[in-house]
Amino acid sequence: MAQFDLPVAELEQYTPQVDEPADFDEFWAGTIAEARGFGGAPVLERVDAGLTEVTVDDFTFPGFGGHPVKAWLVRPARVDGPLPAVVESIGYGGGRGLPHEHLGLAAAGFAHLVMDTRGQGSGWGSGGHTADPVGHAPASPGYMTRGILDPADHYYRRVYTDGVRAVDAVRQVDGVDPARVAVAGTSQGGGIAIAVAGLLPDVVAAAPNVPFLCHFRRAVQITDAFPYGEITQYLSVHREQEDAVWRTLSYLDGVSFARRARAAGLFSVALMDAVCPPSTVYAAFNAWSGDDKRIDVYPYNGHEGGQHYRFAPTVEFLRKHLG
Amino acid sequence: MAQFDLPVAELEQYTPQVDEPADFDEFWAGTIAEARGFGGAPVLERVDAGLTEVTVDDFTFPGFGGHPVKAWLVRPARVDGPLPAVVESIGYGGGRGLPHEHLGLAAAGFAHLVMDTRGQGSGWGSGGHTADPVGHAPASPGYMTRGILDPADHYYRRVYTDGVRAVDAVRQVDGVDPARVAVAGTSQGGGIAIAVAGLLPDVVAAAPNVPFLCHFRRAVQITDAFPYGEITQYLSVHREQEDAVWRTLSYLDGVSFARRARAAGLFSVALMDAVCPPSTVYAAFNAWSGDDKRIDVYPYNGHEGGQHYRFAPTVEFLRKHLG
Amino acid sequence: MAQFDLPVAELEQYTPQVDEPADFDEFWAGTIAEARGFGGAPVLERVDAGLTEVTVDDFTFPGFGGHPVKAWLVRPARVDGPLPAVVESIGYGGGRGLPHEHLGLAAAGFAHLVMDTRGQGSGWGSGGHTADPVGHAPASPGYMTRGILDPADHYYRRVYTDGVRAVDAVRQVDGVDPARVAVAGTSQGGGIAIAVAGLLPDVVAAAPNVPFLCHFRRAVQITDAFPYGEITQYLSVHREQEDAVWRTLSYLDGVSFARRARAAGLFSVALMDAVCPPSTVYAAFNAWSGDDKRIDVYPYNGHEGGQHYRFAPTVEFLRKHLG
Amino acid sequence: MAQFDLPVAELEQYTPQVDEPADFDEFWAGTIAEARGFGGAPVLERVDAGLTEVTVDDFTFPGFGGHPVKAWLVRPARVDGPLPAVVESIGYGGGRGLPHEHLGLAAAGFAHLVMDTRGQGSGWGSGGHTADPVGHAPASPGYMTRGILDPADHYYRRVYTDGVRAVDAVRQVDGVDPARVAVAGTSQGGGIAIAVAGLLPDVVAAAPNVPFLCHFRRAVQITDAFPYGEITQYLSVHREQEDAVWRTLSYLDGVSFARRARAAGLFSVALMDAVCPPSTVYAAFNAWSGDDKRIDVYPYNGHEGGQHYRFAPTVEFLRKHLG
Amino acid sequence: MAQFDLPVAELEQYTPQVDEPADFDEFWAGTIAEARGFGGAPVLERVDAGLTEVTVDDFTFPGFGGHPVKAWLVRPARVDGPLPAVVESIGYGGGRGLPHEHLGLAAAGFAHLVMDTRGQGSGWGSGGHTADPVGHAPASPGYMTRGILDPADHYYRRVYTDGVRAVDAVRQVDGVDPARVAVAGTSQGGGIAIAVAGLLPDVVAAAPNVPFLCHFRRAVQITDAFPYGEITQYLSVHREQEDAVWRTLSYLDGVSFARRARAAGLFSVALMDAVCPPSTVYAAFNAWSGDDKRIDVYPYNGHEGGQHYRFAPTVEFLRKHLG
Amino acid sequence: MAQFDLPVAELEQYTPQVDEPADFDEFWAGTIAEARGFGGAPVLERVDAGLTEVTVDDFTFPGFGGHPVKAWLVRPARVDGPLPAVVESIGYGGGRGLPHEHLGLAAAGFAHLVMDTRGQGSGWGSGGHTADPVGHAPASPGYMTRGILDPADHYYRRVYTDGVRAVDAVRQVDGVDPARVAVAGTSQGGGIAIAVAGLLPDVVAAAPNVPFLCHFRRAVQITDAFPYGEITQYLSVHREQEDAVWRTLSYLDGVSFARRARAAGLFSVALMDAVCPPSTVYAAFNAWSGDDKRIDVYPYNGHEGGQHYRFAPTVEFLRKHLG
Repeated sequence: MAQFDLPVAELEQYTPQVDEPADFDEFWAGTIAEARGFGGAPVLERVDAGLTEVTVDDFTFPGFGGHPVKAWLVRPARVDGPLPAVVESIGYGGGRGLPHEHLGLAAAGFAHLVMDTRGQGSGWGSGGHTADPVGHAPASPGYMTRGILDPADHYYRRVYTDGVRAVDAVRQVDGVDPARVAVAGTSQGGGIAIAVAGLLPDVVAAAPNVPFLCHFRRAVQITDAFPYGEITQYLSVHREQEDAVWRTLSYLDGVSFARRARAAGLFSVALMDAVCPPSTVYAAFNAWSGDDKRIDVYPYNGHEGGQHYRFAPTVEFLRKHLG
Repeated sequence: MAQFDLPVAELEQYTPQVDEPADFDEFWAGTIAEARGFGGAPVLERVDAGLTEVTVDDFTFPGFGGHPVKAWLVRPARVDGPLPAVVESIGYGGGRGLPHEHLGLAAAGFAHLVMDTRGQGSGWGSGGHTADPVGHAPASPGYMTRGILDPADHYYRRVYTDGVRAVDAVRQVDGVDPARVAVAGTSQGGGIAIAVAGLLPDVVAAAPNVPFLCHFRRAVQITDAFPYGEITQYLSVHREQEDAVWRTLSYLDGVSFARRARAAGLFSVALMDAVCPPSTVYAAFNAWSGDDKRIDVYPYNGHEGGQHYRFAPTVEFLRKHLG
Repeated sequence: MAQFDLPVAELEQYTPQVDEPADFDEFWAGTIAEARGFGGAPVLERVDAGLTEVTVDDFTFPGFGGHPVKAWLVRPARVDGPLPAVVESIGYGGGRGLPHEHLGLAAAGFAHLVMDTRGQGSGWGSGGHTADPVGHAPASPGYMTRGILDPADHYYRRVYTDGVRAVDAVRQVDGVDPARVAVAGTSQGGGIAIAVAGLLPDVVAAAPNVPFLCHFRRAVQITDAFPYGEITQYLSVHREQEDAVWRTLSYLDGVSFARRARAAGLFSVALMDAVCPPSTVYAAFNAWSGDDKRIDVYPYNGHEGGQHYRFAPTVEFLRKHLG
Repeated sequence: MAQFDLPVAELEQYTPQVDEPADFDEFWAGTIAEARGFGGAPVLERVDAGLTEVTVDDFTFPGFGGHPVKAWLVRPARVDGPLPAVVESIGYGGGRGLPHEHLGLAAAGFAHLVMDTRGQGSGWGSGGHTADPVGHAPASPGYMTRGILDPADHYYRRVYTDGVRAVDAVRQVDGVDPARVAVAGTSQGGGIAIAVAGLLPDVVAAAPNVPFLCHFRRAVQITDAFPYGEITQYLSVHREQEDAVWRTLSYLDGVSFARRARAAGLFSVALMDAVCPPSTVYAAFNAWSGDDKRIDVYPYNGHEGGQHYRFAPTVEFLRKHLG
Repeated sequence: MAQFDLPVAELEQYTPQVDEPADFDEFWAGTIAEARGFGGAPVLERVDAGLTEVTVDDFTFPGFGGHPVKAWLVRPARVDGPLPAVVESIGYGGGRGLPHEHLGLAAAGFAHLVMDTRGQGSGWGSGGHTADPVGHAPASPGYMTRGILDPADHYYRRVYTDGVRAVDAVRQVDGVDPARVAVAGTSQGGGIAIAVAGLLPDVVAAAPNVPFLCHFRRAVQITDAFPYGEITQYLSVHREQEDAVWRTLSYLDGVSFARRARAAGLFSVALMDAVCPPSTVYAAFNAWSGDDKRIDVYPYNGHEGGQHYRFAPTVEFLRKHLG
Repeated sequence: MAQFDLPVAELEQYTPQVDEPADFDEFWAGTIAEARGFGGAPVLERVDAGLTEVTVDDFTFPGFGGHPVKAWLVRPARVDGPLPAVVESIGYGGGRGLPHEHLGLAAAGFAHLVMDTRGQGSGWGSGGHTADPVGHAPASPGYMTRGILDPADHYYRRVYTDGVRAVDAVRQVDGVDPARVAVAGTSQGGGIAIAVAGLLPDVVAAAPNVPFLCHFRRAVQITDAFPYGEITQYLSVHREQEDAVWRTLSYLDGVSFARRARAAGLFSVALMDAVCPPSTVYAAFNAWSGDDKRIDVYPYNGHEGGQHYRFAPTVEFLRKHLG
């Protein structure tokens, strides 16, 4: 896609107004309270993944509606003293996969919780294991438009809540220091990390890479690529539902969550990324309210962004903030 | 796709063995009984679609689980005496759309019920209006693999049941002759028509065009095209679930329903159809047990098949069998 | 294509200068006079299309050069009193198809004349039935560049004239009120409707959807899509004929016809339409000289635009203006 | 396309039955007689193409219907004694282009006549300059289906006749030895060369490369590629015209012309050619009745076949047979 | 690609004859002897990759021509006693990347040497760091046809030799048990593993996934996909060099190496793999001479094959054979 | 690509700053001196190409490093007096091919030297015959990034030097007037022509068509097309080498060579050219320092630009400047 979006100098100043409903905080406070009201504690079951240097737990925690959500908890085999923890969400269509796919952070000394995205995990990779027990009205294939006519019904209301509850859950684990928890993720996982950081101001650090789920309106105007394209597809059919759609999405926009975040933030963005266009990423980054923030720019990459090059700066960032 | 499948002479003899579970009939008898157990009657609400020569009713009937399913009932404005009725299901991703899209059969003197496919209707066209209130485990985008690990959970168990209940419902309408009901549809709609004809032996006639949902195993082996490709995509991720997947699909295969059908059957098939390969269509047609059956072949068409050229032979066929 | 053209605010003000030859009106007056000079009257032959609620006539009228042009005339079966009539032209590559494809307007109480586009009708759908007996110099595949070196030879000179003669013809039909005739069409059909409205100021109303054949120069500059791309293809080969090409097209531009129209106008446009880019549609709409005009905007659609959603507002518009 | 057609060993034995009407020879004898009846002689006009070592004449000859057809006649500047001549036709969509594109055969000492294909020449390259003044019924974009419902109307009836008349014409040129004329061409040009060789048994040699226009039925069954795909497209719309289409094409099939050829034949074929599948080429080659025939096989090429590698063997072949 | 190659039952019996030159063993014995003649020992430099549970060495060893080749040696941080070692090669176009991308085998207790493929590493991923200092005659973009006219010059002669020398080198490392070394790799890496196992009969085990570089002739006949397509592209240009090309490749074919292998073999293959078609993989597997061999089949995958699902069976296989 | 770059009016004024290292001239003076230091003279071997009107010599000259580089020297058969000469380089991926592909300039009375591009010639056409004996570090497939980390190692340093040495060589040929030499080429050939004209101020004329290798930074920002895309691909992997890459390319930019050219210049550019975007061509043209310069614009062409339409103006231009 070459560098199809705004020039870097303009991106750095790009702070668009995005719709934000008056009851945004109320909506989310109610949502989180309701989910916590279901109670429940994480269940850890040790699994043999053929690995000798790390331990792996099959981790089940109560998410939105108290529904069971699956994750892997991967830790160094030699645990001594409480560990800092990183809660990671997965990119669109993927699942937590297999434990040995998640060795980097544990090999670097962190407790690493990799959570499923409910209902996803059959699009690529090694699979997910978490159902979404909630049905939906007509929707584009995919997840973006499930429940699009009412924020209370929207799929990502459940997913963001799962993310909050994952942090709640990992904090209850023996050997994890509840004060030192970060969130991270790439693409959809980055969007979830931003939402969780906005909802839980005591999360210490957030590391979203090429985040999805930010500034939906602009995304739809400048790219055809999926998954934002699911919104376009939906609106191209349901021509009369435009207002309802934008209203629902205004409760879910990463820009609004970024405004509320207090964590240190390490973003990354790719200037040839047609899936999560750079202006949508900068819209969230420029709105981010944490004191310590930085964005790493990959001028010649598409949506893969920094890929494995993100590991070193992310570990350095996490060590700085999680100790 | 040129003529990529078997030559016509072989297609005409193609009667593959497809897996059929021992409790197939029991499974479906129980399913239908359960759905009927929810009771309920269709609700008709007259709508103004700007049309003077036909009437349109917004038709809501209880489907699987008693869930409300939407349809349009379109009839000639001058109704005199009970009309024969045609229940039509829609192609994959579409919905019942707008009433004026369905004028042909009414203009030819039939009562025409066009039912939504639950949860669909946002992929193309003018939209659907029926939710599927049932959630699902991880699935490929689309509908084909929702609940794929257990026949009781599979999406098409609900849809086929909706189709049966649509026939039940239209038979209760004043001015419809319950003895003269046919089923029809194209692609997914044709697959549903076959299933309903297999489940309701007193349906008089069935007119499936280029039907989907037949002989899943062969489809997956010879075409990459979606929606059969959703099964491939799912299995390419969930490599360990192959047996469960094929078992579930064995309860849903059009070939097994065709064996049980007693209605007159008018099929059509296209020899360049990569979406619903001709051998999968012939597998169902050759298994069809109704006495009066015919298949019209379009040698130079893809999945569009006979398209508008189907209208005349279909009307002739319906008049012959519905009077 | 996302929203690749100008922003809506600029589109609403977009009134480009397009080349218009000094003898534009003379050229067309002579053309129409010559065609009318061939005389002839429409021939109606009643056909059995399997329909009971409408009547269908195979309608042949003398077009450009007196050549026979085919159409369907579809009317409500119960004709009482003279009906208002709508003359519709077809999208690029299609033909009049089969009668039952055109039931909406008749079911709404109009006489509906669906005319073939000469020489077209083998690209998609159910076929056309009208020859173009005139040959041509080297041309791109397609119709856009046939006779491109001289306006007198150009294919669309013949087609626009056929459109005028179709209105002439329908006005001669018993049971049609010649004072209440509208023109309509989508894409190429919309372009023809604009031309006819510009040539026949007594046409009462025009309803072009996502019209083609407007502001050729801009179209070629901003889109590669066919059929405008046929001009590009031609010029990419015949590099020395640029002036002749633009001169010919200046006699055929919808913007010039729009300036001359007096009918009420109901346009529609899609902001993601790469086939008929929105700025070319607005160029015609903004030039439209009829007093009562409106444009409906579909922000999330490509060239399909409003599709079936156009039916209701079009019927309402026609009823308002045709009575 | 890898090697998608039959294995070489089967290709070498491939002699399918193709439909051949009883009046094939009568049809063509009448056609040629009629064209010759229009009389006329070639007109040569010397042009300055910036070349010093060859001469170029703008060559106009009477083709089918006596219509003027354009060609370039390129000859060595030092003409001494009558030269052998090669009449070349052009690939689909192209025209005779510019004179300096045709220097090879003249630089090798031949008189080289490069004829336009009427109505073509705007698809690629440098353009054609010959109109086809005959119109047509609805047809797919392109030339393959123009007049497809009657052999008397078909476009290639005119083109093949032009090819015969080009040989007639070049034989009248001062400095050309009428006894030493060959025909050649690539793709469509190869198909025309086969037809001319079948119609003029006194043509000495024919060199068709990857010829088009042979065994239409098989072509349509095994490839989607255009231009054969134009037939598929036409039949996919005009589903009721299949018999008429195949009847018309039976008058135009290169296999039938090859059976009648007496010239020496040098064919070439490419095994990965999806445009002119190898089995269709072998069908013509195996039917070729000339005593001296050979086919050069390019196993790893698509439709480009031997391309410039054809020059040396073709010159050698022409020298052998034309002296 | 659906399941485009032979059916599984035929694949299991597929043992084609592939060309094998008489001096195959001599050629390779000389090549390896020459490379070893350059001497040199691996150089290990400890690097800080931000990891606490494993150690990483930047590993440089002398390859073909004594040229320095880069690898990562990744080991559990707590080394006690000599470790078994796995030498892995990389897929086409990739490089050794960054150390943290290779944690699985070390976390499972192995010494893991990940070697660069010379000159590659800029096509995807995180990069390679090894030059190929040898130039080449005209070649297709890519590596497959570099030096294609003479086996002594061919690129893969150097690469296979690098693979042998990598095993030589890792055996010299303190803490590695030289008797317990396996080779592994996916795609190109699998092809190299097969070659090394054929050249070093004392390698204990080999685990090639969806291996490339096997049965070149068939690959070229049935797939267009790159990198095999580089051969096609080369031959499509250099039409006269076919014999030289096939002769050169006969020294490099994985089938010939497989015949010579004595190691235990764990293969995997994907039935929808158009990059490394299943018949080419079975050709090597069926020729494999090791006593203990198995092939895992992924019926619904393309070239990604088992992907992360390969980890568990590979670790189990390695533990069984390396102890 | 429609007209995707700047409007013509802006292109005509487009004179961007491109990086130019301080030692640019020193670097190139040293490079050329070193190459000339290897000495050597061209070797001509007359070949029989089947042509009677021109002569062909297989021409081998010492290029960079004294490496043998192949060319064809094609001349009119009747040489009388010293001829002016044109040195042509070839487009990316191609080779000098076969002699009869290069007849135009010889037929117009010039000595025409068509040089191979080292290592290329297997991508399309009839092949090249010149090795590049120098290896390289990891690079994208293709030539653009070979040696990208150091200008001394870069592939195009060798190629540009070959171009200079080709001029040196042709000037030594008997029957060529060393004072009347021009350079020409299309795409990559045009880029080489610009470089040679910048390095040899006594070249009389230069005719680059749609030249490649100009203003690399802008090219990468606005197009994804290859071969510029090779730089993007390389940087997308080697994210840390951006500075080194741009530094190397600053020694190779056509804009810097254009500034130093003194020859008459005839450029051509195509406004829909996504391979060599018009702004990169204008950047070089506007920087061109020769007194007599002109650019021909093809508004409706892609990278094929004027193609055969370039012949006449180029011959006219060459005659004007070479006599």
